[in-house]
Amino acid sequence: MRRLINDGYDAVEEMLEGYTKAHPEYVHLDPNDGRVIVSNMLSEEPRVRIILGGGTGHEPLFLGYVGKDFGDAAVAGNVNTSPSPEPCYNAVKAVDSGKGCLYLYGNYAGDVMNFDMGAEMAAEDGIRVETVTVKDDIYSSKNFEDRRGVAGDIIVFKVAAAAAAKGLDLDAVKEAAEKANRNTYSMGVALSSATLPVTGTEIFHMEEGEMEIGMGIHGEPGIERTKLKPADEVVDELLGHILDEAQFEEGAEVQILVNGLGGLPLMDQYICYRRVDEVLNEKGLKIHRSMVGNYATSMDMIGMSVTVVKLDDELKELLDAPCDTPYWKIK
Amino acid sequence: MRRLINDGYDAVEEMLEGYTKAHPEYVHLDPNDGRVIVSNMLSEEPRVRIILGGGTGHEPLFLGYVGKDFGDAAVAGNVNTSPSPEPCYNAVKAVDSGKGCLYLYGNYAGDVMNFDMGAEMAAEDGIRVETVTVKDDIYSSKNFEDRRGVAGDIIVFKVAAAAAAKGLDLDAVKEAAEKANRNTYSMGVALSSATLPVTGTEIFHMEEGEMEIGMGIHGEPGIERTKLKPADEVVDELLGHILDEAQFEEGAEVQILVNGLGGLPLMDQYICYRRVDEVLNEKGLKIHRSMVGNYATSMDMIGMSVTVVKLDDELKELLDAPCDTPYWKIK
Repeated sequence: MRRLINDGYDAVEEMLEGYTKAHPEYVHLDPNDGRVIVSNMLSEEPRVRIILGGGTGHEPLFLGYVGKDFGDAAVAGNVNTSPSPEPCYNAVKAVDSGKGCLYLYGNYAGDVMNFDMGAEMAAEDGIRVETVTVKDDIYSSKNFEDRRGVAGDIIVFKVAAAAAAKGLDLDAVKEAAEKANRNTYSMGVALSSATLPVTGTEIFHMEEGEMEIGMGIHGEPGIERTKLKPADEVVDELLGHILDEAQFEEGAEVQILVNGLGGLPLMDQYICYRRVDEVLNEKGLKIHRSMVGNYATSMDMIGMSVTVVKLDDELKELLDAPCDTPYWKIK
Repeated sequence: MRRLINDGYDAVEEMLEGYTKAHPEYVHLDPNDGRVIVSNMLSEEPRVRIILGGGTGHEPLFLGYVGKDFGDAAVAGNVNTSPSPEPCYNAVKAVDSGKGCLYLYGNYAGDVMNFDMGAEMAAEDGIRVETVTVKDDIYSSKNFEDRRGVAGDIIVFKVAAAAAAKGLDLDAVKEAAEKANRNTYSMGVALSSATLPVTGTEIFHMEEGEMEIGMGIHGEPGIERTKLKPADEVVDELLGHILDEAQFEEGAEVQILVNGLGGLPLMDQYICYRRVDEVLNEKGLKIHRSMVGNYATSMDMIGMSVTVVKLDDELKELLDAPCDTPYWKIK
């Protein structure tokens, strides 16, 4: 194991303690539930509240996007494991201001089950909670509804949060998030597994010099395991799938996220971005904004994903709207 | 090799191209010198200009801190290699506004030689260039003057840039940077080597389950190579050395940086931060601001460093001053 942790069973609690102590201006732990991270910058006026969440091990996802005009709370499960229903419910109790809440998380069965139970518990208190599950990983299924959520999570979260910050009602905030969801296309490549803190071992094993395109962030199978190819070929393959799926029109405006999965140097991520920019320009697309870095990781997994978001005026306005969190700030 | 690059000889140029394309609002490449990254947000009024630099492979150092009220330019060498004198000089030509420039970089012999030659070339044009080399790695030498610069680089850079943004003259900006330098203490631990892009091989080899406290970011030797210890023990050892060296008075105010070296998950960095916070509070220090993340890396090296900065009112004001760059934003 090449991890700097204490007892693996304490890793999540210790991380949450460290996170909230490091960023006291942004967040605190809910005194009633140590798995709920609550914003210190909740709007004074009542608003639809944005609740993010899922398993841990994907930092800065989800807690890193709690702050001002973005996530109002995040719910943290164990590593690669859905949070249980109680913290999902407790997050609602901690932040609801009478306008209802929107749960936003990647589309994984365990998360769906437990967040749905949290929503039912809230309904018993008369609080309306709606849900949008992010489904941006185009390789995970041919059917949109069955797709998993990966780095595109943060695009959908940002759009929803900006819609809530505008004062839109729950139906309208949900609609904006769903629109972002339908227009967000991601695909990734892995060169290694992450290391699980409790066991100190890999989830799966890849030899040095191998890669797997289409692999999920928990090691879900991709297309095939091949010899590591040059960055430009990998990007071309990822973009090929995304462009086939998305069928952008020439002149379309897009936002790009080249997302590191944890162990890939920024140098490599910018080398990959260079090729993304080149190819999309050749295709006649107009890049409105680009993001490069470790926005949604799988701990120490070496790999990256490319996300392309098709924009219209509404999505552009919401993605460009000001926000302030430790891991995404727009003035 | 577990890197996503093309030809290793092209890695630096391709990264710089990707970086400037991804962040066109912040920077551009100097049309006269492809190794000089220039801010698009230079102040309109003449000011002392801040020029950062050094070898590449430490991203987001140095180029990631070029923007508004921070670095005005960065000079990029090859991986782990000083830039040559010409780009050091060309950076001055690109940004000088008549008030002189300050070179800021980590204290390495090659950088000192080449930046000094750049300053001499600028002097021939009548432009005054002064230098502060950062020396925060307390284990690298008993003598302050011989110490290397590691993650504390960014603290000294920030202080100098904020002093320049206040309109101070070159002597005063240099003095502020030197004060930050004397009050910045870092020490790190490595669990693996970085991978060099040109050879595709490690710089040195560490077995899984080993660690080396005090190791430099290019693999400079540390105290001894031992079995990997729990995070809290590693932090205690790093802080022990820092506290011995710094001799902070009880009640002193400090700023903390827990810096990931590239391959260490954020989860682990926050677990380490938790212990830093705990120990410093026990010692009666007051933590003014904390930063956690990959601020100065060694590509894919697994490891981290702890930096403690002793503050006074002046340093606090300069470190808190607004700035806007891709990798450090303060409102």
